[in-house]
Amino acid sequence: MNILLSCVGRRGYIAKYFKDCLTSEDVIIGTSNSPWTSGFKYCDVKLVIPNMESPEYLPTLLQICEDKQVNLLLSFSDLDINILSNNLDKFKALGVNALVPSSEVNQICFDKYQGYEFLTQQGFATPKTYREFNLAVEDINQGKLLFPLIVKPRFGSGSLNLFKARHLKELDVFFHYAPDMLIQSQISGQEYGIDVCLNLQGEVLSVIPRRKRAMRSGETDQAEICDRPDLIDIGIRLGTALGKLGHVGPLDVDFLDNSQDLFAIDLNPRFGGGYPISHLAGGNFPELILRIAKGEKVNSQIGNYQTDIVMMKEYNILGGKHESIFPPGVFNS
Amino acid sequence: MNILLSCVGRRGYIAKYFKDCLTSEDVIIGTSNSPWTSGFKYCDVKLVIPNMESPEYLPTLLQICEDKQVNLLLSFSDLDINILSNNLDKFKALGVNALVPSSEVNQICFDKYQGYEFLTQQGFATPKTYREFNLAVEDINQGKLLFPLIVKPRFGSGSLNLFKARHLKELDVFFHYAPDMLIQSQISGQEYGIDVCLNLQGEVLSVIPRRKRAMRSGETDQAEICDRPDLIDIGIRLGTALGKLGHVGPLDVDFLDNSQDLFAIDLNPRFGGGYPISHLAGGNFPELILRIAKGEKVNSQIGNYQTDIVMMKEYNILGGKHESIFPPGVFNS
Repeated sequence: MNILLSCVGRRGYIAKYFKDCLTSEDVIIGTSNSPWTSGFKYCDVKLVIPNMESPEYLPTLLQICEDKQVNLLLSFSDLDINILSNNLDKFKALGVNALVPSSEVNQICFDKYQGYEFLTQQGFATPKTYREFNLAVEDINQGKLLFPLIVKPRFGSGSLNLFKARHLKELDVFFHYAPDMLIQSQISGQEYGIDVCLNLQGEVLSVIPRRKRAMRSGETDQAEICDRPDLIDIGIRLGTALGKLGHVGPLDVDFLDNSQDLFAIDLNPRFGGGYPISHLAGGNFPELILRIAKGEKVNSQIGNYQTDIVMMKEYNILGGKHESIFPPGVFNS
Repeated sequence: MNILLSCVGRRGYIAKYFKDCLTSEDVIIGTSNSPWTSGFKYCDVKLVIPNMESPEYLPTLLQICEDKQVNLLLSFSDLDINILSNNLDKFKALGVNALVPSSEVNQICFDKYQGYEFLTQQGFATPKTYREFNLAVEDINQGKLLFPLIVKPRFGSGSLNLFKARHLKELDVFFHYAPDMLIQSQISGQEYGIDVCLNLQGEVLSVIPRRKRAMRSGETDQAEICDRPDLIDIGIRLGTALGKLGHVGPLDVDFLDNSQDLFAIDLNPRFGGGYPISHLAGGNFPELILRIAKGEKVNSQIGNYQTDIVMMKEYNILGGKHESIFPPGVFNS
């Protein structure tokens, strides 16, 4: 099987998890817009290709799928998924099994305002969210919305331009700091996350809940597996709802628990930075994905994980002579 | 030799660099306020001790030095160095060679306003800095200070509460977002860094310049060694100036190059997150430090490093069963 990990970036550990499940005949192909990509480490083929913004990006990726006879495609970047999900038919036409959300699911995950509407309509708790400054101010004036408020980009990823506003003057400046900002009521509480895996029919195969202990640059840095049947239940319902709209493969959801409710705060239709703890707990998503990609019928694995598992990330240093780290000819597409 | 790495945190790679230079009789002791400390991985003795804010913190650290017969002390935290540098006599009285700056050097590095004054007085280029809002506004009104402006904490570390203000309304909100904020003119340009190593007499032994390619959570994530004699020259002059005020051991300085001048923007009197590239280039500071701590006369190593070296960090995943990662009894002080 030839597996394309698009925008492999820093997710070398996911490439390694796939590698652990593969035979010597299988090939992992990674792409990036720069050879300065730590995730290339575990890729058999490392391709430096144009930026996502380039008109050459999609044609290059399709060409790679054709040339390398790619069977399975996953992406680690929200911006990339936003492109891929709108071109799924082109990948399907090449026989690629793209574990990328449908355009509809992408919209719900990529656009945090649509995500808010979806979650609310489906009956999931999520922080009240405004995209119009005046409507938020109206609700503040009527006592329906209380400070502090979170201001964040509608289409953002990571923790860039995320502010906490404690009064109207701050709200005004933060909201107008960049285009397309959202105002959200702040939920105070413990952060949780779940890794969900869906099959090609959009059915939930696995849900693994974790309690986050520390974040870094917007991703889970330290976590522990937790015994939260309520999180598993939400994961099944949310995964099923997104599966019906065309999601397949991994899904990562972030939550805040204010002791009254579990608020979904972020939907990522891909492997998230917290996945390693689910993997350590035995929820081997790469193996599940390879099995479903091969057409195997995989039974539900829900509840099938070890508790009492902890995870923390450390830095490993890659480097040395320029020509040994970036050997000439290795990265050409 | 017994080496205490105080607040070892995420700097496991530095502990490993020390370990590589040690004999089997030498011992590396790491401290942290939590067993969730990846840096413990390369420490022979892992001690979980009270928070820095606790009145028990300093007595505990001194007790460790006495009990474990610590010969050499380094710290990886600015807040910790702020405590240690004001209590150097207590460590000296226990026979500990503390590679921690003098209280005067700590003030210059910990308090970015004092750092600005020091750099300016010593003739080093550094962004014009204001601690008083009204003085900055006066200079803005007189056309002496131009937007965009950087607003950041006077005593901060990392990239928390760092803002870019593009007009007066933003400046007002950002400056008043937290106590003790500074306003700084923005220098646009390439980021550089240097690792400097001083001996116990405050003489500069080594300066290694790097070009930064990417930052993450306020620390160098990707870099390459560069051929910049001007950076080495500044490193010698700056290191010597701080050495005269009582600095010993490692020093990490960040710069911005706007093509007209090299602006020093941050002084860290410790190993910084970019050190691994200097290490890969052959500037083995742990070895230098161990030699000077043993009383050996070490000649200047300036210019003694390989060029054409690159570095990037990747995440390594630590984890597993709770009791195997946090074995009972291992972390007690």
